[in-house]
Amino acid sequence: MSTTEIGSHQVHPRALCESEHIGEGTRIWAFAHVMHGAEVGAACNIGEHVFLERGARVGDRVTIKNGVCLWDGVTIEDDAFIGPGVIFTNDRYPRSPRLEAVQARYAHAENWREPTTVGRGASIGAGSILLCGVTIGAFAMIGAAALVTRDVLAHAWMLGRPARRVGWACVCGRKLDAGLCCGACGRRHRSGAAGLICEEIAHA
Amino acid sequence: MSTTEIGSHQVHPRALCESEHIGEGTRIWAFAHVMHGAEVGAACNIGEHVFLERGARVGDRVTIKNGVCLWDGVTIEDDAFIGPGVIFTNDRYPRSPRLEAVQARYAHAENWREPTTVGRGASIGAGSILLCGVTIGAFAMIGAAALVTRDVLAHAWMLGRPARRVGWACVCGRKLDAGLCCGACGRRHRSGAAGLICEEIAHA
Amino acid sequence: MSTTEIGSHQVHPRALCESEHIGEGTRIWAFAHVMHGAEVGAACNIGEHVFLERGARVGDRVTIKNGVCLWDGVTIEDDAFIGPGVIFTNDRYPRSPRLEAVQARYAHAENWREPTTVGRGASIGAGSILLCGVTIGAFAMIGAAALVTRDVLAHAWMLGRPARRVGWACVCGRKLDAGLCCGACGRRHRSGAAGLICEEIAHA
Repeated sequence: MSTTEIGSHQVHPRALCESEHIGEGTRIWAFAHVMHGAEVGAACNIGEHVFLERGARVGDRVTIKNGVCLWDGVTIEDDAFIGPGVIFTNDRYPRSPRLEAVQARYAHAENWREPTTVGRGASIGAGSILLCGVTIGAFAMIGAAALVTRDVLAHAWMLGRPARRVGWACVCGRKLDAGLCCGACGRRHRSGAAGLICEEIAHA
Repeated sequence: MSTTEIGSHQVHPRALCESEHIGEGTRIWAFAHVMHGAEVGAACNIGEHVFLERGARVGDRVTIKNGVCLWDGVTIEDDAFIGPGVIFTNDRYPRSPRLEAVQARYAHAENWREPTTVGRGASIGAGSILLCGVTIGAFAMIGAAALVTRDVLAHAWMLGRPARRVGWACVCGRKLDAGLCCGACGRRHRSGAAGLICEEIAHA
Repeated sequence: MSTTEIGSHQVHPRALCESEHIGEGTRIWAFAHVMHGAEVGAACNIGEHVFLERGARVGDRVTIKNGVCLWDGVTIEDDAFIGPGVIFTNDRYPRSPRLEAVQARYAHAENWREPTTVGRGASIGAGSILLCGVTIGAFAMIGAAALVTRDVLAHAWMLGRPARRVGWACVCGRKLDAGLCCGACGRRHRSGAAGLICEEIAHA
């Protein structure tokens, strides 16, 4: 990659990185824009045409594919995957803030902004759309083209519009069998309060 | 914003603005491209990675979020909100214009281009897709991820694929009650020929 | 277009073209990126904010509208149309490749990458999403906002999520009548092993 090394991370010469909070080994690709006040952890891959607004927060080892926008109020935890064209939102009742009838509402972010969190190791499939205010549990697998309208349990496999749970996902990304064991990698899981827990992954 | 002031509007140095018809106070953000022959009114916000083709028309106080393309034939009226990743179209039967069998059709725009209009104060939710040839009424609220396949009444609240009316929206963006009154701001509405009319908003 | 002529094709000064395999007469628009190792044929139109990854292959006379990403493993055959915001994928079980539990899987592309092919003259409507591993037949017409989950027959007209066949499309982009004849251009078609065959188009 013909990038500029800035400290220990790499920014493509056609990208724009104004943040001072970028972790070691992270790469930011062409035509991406990371605003001042956005935070990105270590060893991340920030794809082309991505936009990170002031207030967006990204953990370590996260992959964000092309064309994704992370707004103020969006948090992506460690090891998550955000597919190409995934759309986040932060306002359930959007109007143009310049419309006179709503200017008072948009004067303070707490009047309208609802936060969204994508949990550790979760995957958001290509072209999915997340309504604001939702929390995606750890290692959940949101299929391509889903519409997420409510909170998602850890390890849940979600499909459709609105997204519904059709199974459970392993840490490795494959479907679990009825005994909550993965036929591909052998990892075992058990039920917890907010979805499944993988017995072979350390939990902080 | 580290922008270039061009007359009375602002163009980010990584944006490309070739149009001479940009109104006062409008901001055009990074990696956006406004072509020669596109028209944008005053006090608009044109987001990053937006594309305005020659022939696209945008009114005053409009917000266009990231990644939206407005083609020749698309008109956005005053105070409208176009969410991130919204997709417009202008051809119902698209083929590659270089395909020999269709070159005659693409020789003249009137053979294939169908116009789309988003009315005053309307909101198009994130990731919605509008088939060409439709008109969205004033202050309509199109939910995230909708597919709009036909005309939408003024103040209609639309959801789904294809989008269907599930209620009525206030000027302020909240749902109206059964008496067409807004519980949030108190504005009252009455039925008109093409949807609702807000009794407390001046109509040109 | 204020472009740089490079040999016989044109690259917008704000685009980035690193490939040496671009055919004659092809135009690459602003903020697009064609990586080294991507191949594009002659007389193509590569829209703004498009990304072609190393390994993507595009035939002759193809139109790729704004914001489309073609990954390694995606092949677009001659005369095809890819609408704005169409999303391709190349991994059915995506996880962040930096997640320790999946690093071995992502070490070799054959472990996870599934190819996708769009056949000659086919159209992929705006905002459609294609799961990886599918083949779209020649002159198929995929409607806007479809989700393609399996192979599509030649000349099939597909709508919905998941996409289902609702009719047959002519080479010219119009719907065929019950006799497989086009009311618009008069071309006639017959059934073949993998969909329809147009009797008036030469087949290689």
